[in-house]
Amino acid sequence: MREVTIAIDAMGGDHGPHVTVRAALAVLDRFEGVNIILVGLEDVLLTELQACKAATGTRLRIHHASEVVSMDDPLTVALRGKKDSSMRVTAELVKRGEADAGVSAGNTGALMAVSRFVLKTLPGIDRPAIATTLPSHGGRTYVLDLGANVDCTADHLLQFGIMGSSLAAVAEHKDRPSVGLLNIGEEAIKGNDIVKQAGEMLRDSGLNFRGNIEGDDIYKGTVDVVVCDGFVGNVALKASEGVAKLIAEELRSQFNRNPFTRLAGLIALPVIRAFKRKMDPRAYNGATLLGLNGIIIKSHGSADVFGFQQAILRAVEEVRGGLLRRIADQVREHHGRHNTIGDAA
Amino acid sequence: MREVTIAIDAMGGDHGPHVTVRAALAVLDRFEGVNIILVGLEDVLLTELQACKAATGTRLRIHHASEVVSMDDPLTVALRGKKDSSMRVTAELVKRGEADAGVSAGNTGALMAVSRFVLKTLPGIDRPAIATTLPSHGGRTYVLDLGANVDCTADHLLQFGIMGSSLAAVAEHKDRPSVGLLNIGEEAIKGNDIVKQAGEMLRDSGLNFRGNIEGDDIYKGTVDVVVCDGFVGNVALKASEGVAKLIAEELRSQFNRNPFTRLAGLIALPVIRAFKRKMDPRAYNGATLLGLNGIIIKSHGSADVFGFQQAILRAVEEVRGGLLRRIADQVREHHGRHNTIGDAA
Repeated sequence: MREVTIAIDAMGGDHGPHVTVRAALAVLDRFEGVNIILVGLEDVLLTELQACKAATGTRLRIHHASEVVSMDDPLTVALRGKKDSSMRVTAELVKRGEADAGVSAGNTGALMAVSRFVLKTLPGIDRPAIATTLPSHGGRTYVLDLGANVDCTADHLLQFGIMGSSLAAVAEHKDRPSVGLLNIGEEAIKGNDIVKQAGEMLRDSGLNFRGNIEGDDIYKGTVDVVVCDGFVGNVALKASEGVAKLIAEELRSQFNRNPFTRLAGLIALPVIRAFKRKMDPRAYNGATLLGLNGIIIKSHGSADVFGFQQAILRAVEEVRGGLLRRIADQVREHHGRHNTIGDAA
Repeated sequence: MREVTIAIDAMGGDHGPHVTVRAALAVLDRFEGVNIILVGLEDVLLTELQACKAATGTRLRIHHASEVVSMDDPLTVALRGKKDSSMRVTAELVKRGEADAGVSAGNTGALMAVSRFVLKTLPGIDRPAIATTLPSHGGRTYVLDLGANVDCTADHLLQFGIMGSSLAAVAEHKDRPSVGLLNIGEEAIKGNDIVKQAGEMLRDSGLNFRGNIEGDDIYKGTVDVVVCDGFVGNVALKASEGVAKLIAEELRSQFNRNPFTRLAGLIALPVIRAFKRKMDPRAYNGATLLGLNGIIIKSHGSADVFGFQQAILRAVEEVRGGLLRRIADQVREHHGRHNTIGDAA
């Protein structure tokens, strides 16, 4: 198995090193062939390692970065003010090839801006997109964009399709993942003009395009990859989270109503636990900033040790699967066929 | 309590008269002061009434309509081809004042087109919107638009805010319902240009506007009314349905895993049932076609007798609450303040 080095913005996220360091150690413990660079304030990270009774070594090193991008920092500060931030240095390690991928739980907007500034986009890709997986009836569905681009052209949506297909191919080991375009009706005549035009371009793209799909198809597993603009994708994702939370609360409150329901809950506990494990949102933590000339994974800011591990493992998976080369190949193939995409237009 | 007459497109929906007639009879049985006109093929409706051991009378009559709009009929057929359809005649009874409101489980696009053609929009409203309620932490949230308008201007979104606020005021008996604008971040700088502009207009509208909200706020109950364009609203609604279905399936399959889990399921059954009742999507059936010069409620096509009853009761509620007058007042009030809305611009 290919040796992989992951740079971790160890200062990012709601819990900072307390979570990132423990997650890194857990990954090193469980997975061979993975090396980790913890990026951040050296003394803080050393203290945290000590607290975990761990130390640096051949597979784990610290790369000092003197600044930290906070959740409230405006983009300009993240981009120009803090040139030695753990976030930016993480991206630079990827850029210089010292790391194969970077992982951060920092502010999404800042991470996207910094990563794009440092790494640039792949040839043929105008705008990076945020992609993640969501649970579906048959497995998992890749959805993009989730908020990097609020106004998309049809060409951007086509590029999302190409990138998402590459991501699903690499992560799911599928040769030709199916792609659907998020719309409000299955008929091609529905939807706004940009979506209609994107549908025609996707149909003609050489991708395994299955046409329009609707919001519920994300969770039915109708296709492997769902393409949408970042506004719609973000709302769909957050609305889904909201429903899931409401259902969980309601179930809890029903089991807590009286002694009898509490007893029933106790008896059903193993089932409820298995159910929770299966639907655990932490297992889906880790969004790929797709389309950059380097692999950057964004972890949820509130991720715990288990969740942050999943984000690191996603980075490992994408490096080993050769994600960047796969996207570049698909763009080139599409370019050869159409001569219409991105900067080749 | 004000006497109310509801016209029902008795032929619409997946189950037609089998559901609509039974739902009408159930409402007549349970609620005083409600009269119903069943619109459709007279002999079919009479047969159905006979099967239910019921007959027409002072509170229930049949209005014959010789044609039926099918789910597959193109808009032009619904609009121009079938002038004596049960759907169209239902709208005409509302137009002529023979009924106070109409209810149909027919094709949404056809119902909107026919209703708009027959009833026209209220003064100051450019485009009708589809509004429905969704369950939230504290009660229910009104969301619009859910698919009538895929491309909206800021002015349209403002009009949705005014109409949604009127609807929530009438249905929830609240004086100044809170209104939120669906966006992808809480900060006013986020979102696309149209949403930003709509935010400024809503802030300045005299409505109880609470600013931007995100997808999960729909279910948190952060505001009474959520405003969005029809593309985003439709995707959010369908994605929510998809998650809820996936969770229900997973819960069922976990309880069915083996004899022990099945026993636990049996013991937890009363709790699961109470939970299901609380989250029953049928209780939320019935979307208002808002902004028309008449009250038209669209029922889910697959609604059963219980679900279709809810749609009828929603119509009754909106008539009794004086929805149309409330919208007209709010538009006039806003017009007086700004002189910028709709046809008064």
